[in-house]
Amino acid sequence: MNEIDFAVLGTGGIGRRTLEVSQHKEQLRPVAACDRNGIALDRDGLDVEELLDATEGNIAGDGRGDTDGPDAATDGGVATDSGGVKQTGEGAGIVASEQGEPTATPIDDVIAVAEDLDAVLIALPNLEHDFIPRIADRFADAGYSGVLIDVLKRSRVIGMLDERAETFEEAGLTFVCGAGATPGFLTGAAALAAQSFVEVHEIDIWWGVGLKSGYKDNRGTVREDIAHLDGYDIETARDLSDDEIEEIVEAHDGVLEFHDMEHADDVLLERAGICDAEDVTVGGVLDVRSDEKPTTTTVTVTGTTFDGERATNTFELGDETSMAANVNGPALGYLQSAVRRNRAGEYGVFGPAELMPGF
Amino acid sequence: MNEIDFAVLGTGGIGRRTLEVSQHKEQLRPVAACDRNGIALDRDGLDVEELLDATEGNIAGDGRGDTDGPDAATDGGVATDSGGVKQTGEGAGIVASEQGEPTATPIDDVIAVAEDLDAVLIALPNLEHDFIPRIADRFADAGYSGVLIDVLKRSRVIGMLDERAETFEEAGLTFVCGAGATPGFLTGAAALAAQSFVEVHEIDIWWGVGLKSGYKDNRGTVREDIAHLDGYDIETARDLSDDEIEEIVEAHDGVLEFHDMEHADDVLLERAGICDAEDVTVGGVLDVRSDEKPTTTTVTVTGTTFDGERATNTFELGDETSMAANVNGPALGYLQSAVRRNRAGEYGVFGPAELMPGF
Repeated sequence: MNEIDFAVLGTGGIGRRTLEVSQHKEQLRPVAACDRNGIALDRDGLDVEELLDATEGNIAGDGRGDTDGPDAATDGGVATDSGGVKQTGEGAGIVASEQGEPTATPIDDVIAVAEDLDAVLIALPNLEHDFIPRIADRFADAGYSGVLIDVLKRSRVIGMLDERAETFEEAGLTFVCGAGATPGFLTGAAALAAQSFVEVHEIDIWWGVGLKSGYKDNRGTVREDIAHLDGYDIETARDLSDDEIEEIVEAHDGVLEFHDMEHADDVLLERAGICDAEDVTVGGVLDVRSDEKPTTTTVTVTGTTFDGERATNTFELGDETSMAANVNGPALGYLQSAVRRNRAGEYGVFGPAELMPGF
Repeated sequence: MNEIDFAVLGTGGIGRRTLEVSQHKEQLRPVAACDRNGIALDRDGLDVEELLDATEGNIAGDGRGDTDGPDAATDGGVATDSGGVKQTGEGAGIVASEQGEPTATPIDDVIAVAEDLDAVLIALPNLEHDFIPRIADRFADAGYSGVLIDVLKRSRVIGMLDERAETFEEAGLTFVCGAGATPGFLTGAAALAAQSFVEVHEIDIWWGVGLKSGYKDNRGTVREDIAHLDGYDIETARDLSDDEIEEIVEAHDGVLEFHDMEHADDVLLERAGICDAEDVTVGGVLDVRSDEKPTTTTVTVTGTTFDGERATNTFELGDETSMAANVNGPALGYLQSAVRRNRAGEYGVFGPAELMPGF
């Protein structure tokens, strides 16, 4: 496959790590990155090291996916999935990099060069359900005909993207949704593990994340997770102040446990024909005060074989693998796969499990 | 994806189970099957149930992949991976089915209808290294431009197929090699598990197979495995009589343990860019006197993450899943994926890990 030129929207925890991991992938060349205040663009490939050094602990955005700024009507703004130190004012975020240029319209600036892009990875929080779908609209409206890929988690957003499938098909756009760790990596693992069976009864995805050193860079992710706690939803989580989030974390001694999450794995596995969405359960434990995982990330798939045996296949991640490692490697793998699909003329909306061998 | 019409060469243990499992896959329609004595052909889809009932315990072939018969020069013969009861004479194998017609040239008969086929699954033993490559030659020479897929195990055969890559590309033929359980299912699992890492140090594939009830149907497989034992190789295993094989099995009390097998997983993972072939080890335990697995089939992938942590990811198959379940589901999954590649204009030789998302 030829080289893939790609852009990253958002340079919070996920966006920055995506850029970092892409340096290990020969075929991938990051040529653009943006946050709410600025854009870095180099068609010969960004100097990722300089960009990361300049933006570490210096993130534009507070993890709320805020699009209500003065330029929201024209550009939608670019939030990041991170809360950092220097969040506002001169020198915030990407403009602190030598490669960054300030702009009031970062997404439009990326769209302006989109015809040179093979893929755009959307590393933005999605606390408004339709935030990422609306970004996709803007790319489609502008005639972009490459790959869009996100790492979103919410089941209901998939439906919003599906409503746009025809538009994407007409535009020649291939959208891959939920291509991070979970959904994403673990959805793919579940689809693979299901291959022993002719009928799948139950898929259980259970994750552990230790986020002490990455806590500040991943507040957007923590905020999204809090929306899954009893008593909270996406709207209430979005309205929480940073102090209120700290109080919730404090009240749980830094360890948040989640059950029956509305994680898109369920609809993504159903789309791929693996099982019914209702047979998928997702939960996990997040510890923001330790980098050690509070529990082992495990996917179990229980089904019946063609010869009538009931069994459970298991996929387990080593406890030393960070969330960042399990998001970004798979996301870039799915990105490459999506570019191949796109070049072969396959357009529309795909989940990670649909990019697995034709299972 | 549109419906896939496919043929199976060989109706031994693997071929028959492939037909059976395909009944659970909506998009797959088996339209042809052959063994050394006959062919069954129905463009509207074979009656798989009738075919299986008629050929159960009634297999043409002795598991040696014998191509030395009188018609070898013109047709190469079709062996199966199985030894059965009524192996020769009238009514042996597929001709026992109402759908079966006797023929002296079964492979040529399939080639004669190949333009109607999207895929051909080669479920034949490969005790002569170049047996399957030579079958591929015949399809390519006849202008077949679909998918050929096999479940072979031997590393060195991949090289022989690679030598033919250009011929396949010119013919518009997509060849997928080693798409059974191991290599195949477990190679794919290793490729997936490697996604946490930017460098993979070691992949260990360890399988357990209990084959009591399937022993008679899978003598070809057992013979191939014996070739991996100390003191044997592919040539000596091929020359063993059934009695000699029984003696070997007896001497091991029915339990054969294998280490450092020349299993194609190593070269297939290297092809896909996952790790070096020498970092892959394959071994396992075969028990022909019990259907219970003598050990749990496990894939472990050890690597280093982008953030410098060394860890091991693990994929484990439930002990109740039979070899047949783990061969045929994945083989048909890879077959579907290969047809998609073929239709998109991707020709040549692929391993299972290359059909995974663009990892």
